[in-house]
Amino acid sequence: MRNMVLSILIDNTPGALSRVVGLFSRRGYNIDSLTVGETENMKVSRMTVAVTGDGIILDQIEKQIKKLENVIEVKELASHASVCRELILVKVAAAQEERPAINAIVEIFRAKIVDVASDTMMIELTGNQAKLNAFTKLLDGYEIKELVRTGITGLARGFLDDNGQ
Amino acid sequence: MRNMVLSILIDNTPGALSRVVGLFSRRGYNIDSLTVGETENMKVSRMTVAVTGDGIILDQIEKQIKKLENVIEVKELASHASVCRELILVKVAAAQEERPAINAIVEIFRAKIVDVASDTMMIELTGNQAKLNAFTKLLDGYEIKELVRTGITGLARGFLDDNGQ
Repeated sequence: MRNMVLSILIDNTPGALSRVVGLFSRRGYNIDSLTVGETENMKVSRMTVAVTGDGIILDQIEKQIKKLENVIEVKELASHASVCRELILVKVAAAQEERPAINAIVEIFRAKIVDVASDTMMIELTGNQAKLNAFTKLLDGYEIKELVRTGITGLARGFLDDNGQ
Repeated sequence: MRNMVLSILIDNTPGALSRVVGLFSRRGYNIDSLTVGETENMKVSRMTVAVTGDGIILDQIEKQIKKLENVIEVKELASHASVCRELILVKVAAAQEERPAINAIVEIFRAKIVDVASDTMMIELTGNQAKLNAFTKLLDGYEIKELVRTGITGLARGFLDDNGQ
């Protein structure tokens, strides 16, 4: 079993996204996370797909995606050669007496409080998966009302002249 | 024409995501952005879909999504009652003499430099769409090597006792 993060450039057309997602589901492969957003070119979107599975089948899927209509480029984001990030928003129950402790967690992670209501606080945090997982684990003692994660996105690191990375 | 952001809870199964995405593409509707990630419940994923189109047809699509298998909940995130955020990574060409000016842009937006290589810098920024658009506009004078956006994610704001929001 292996984790793979694929960065896929597709034409910004209604069918392109559907074809890529459909390919995974036809093979019975569950996508761990998926982001699709704009790029510097209005006609092109970039998808980032995180998936876990058998290495040989993942390689097959990667090749099949490359052959799909409206797919421009497929690259694997290897963890050592790329920067991967994710954004999380958490709405947590926060009675007056709990707020100082929640604020302390927010400070440790350099997170941001983006909404405060009568009984809840909403916190925003960006980081790699390990950081986000540690953050949600620390919040375990509190009642999480709602939580959303964007899923992983990333880019390949730049090249260094000297050490030939 | 109207912009709509839908927050959709789905079962974490291979077909569920594919069915929702397929519904948009069958109607010829292009998704502006899409994020799918984990929630506090391992068996459930939360999708956030941003789409632009005719209001009546968007309402129809929302109703059709509610009827799909493995769809648990569909909510519209109205801009006044929700917090919406997006994450961007930009790899920009950065010769030595350009770095101070790029650093200045990074500071103005409180962005983060997450990778520095011989000829490039990678910048991470989180914010609402307006902030991200302003940021990429300021970078217009530089050569953008690669850019990825997660797409919008968001949660409904908490309730306030006093003004009855």
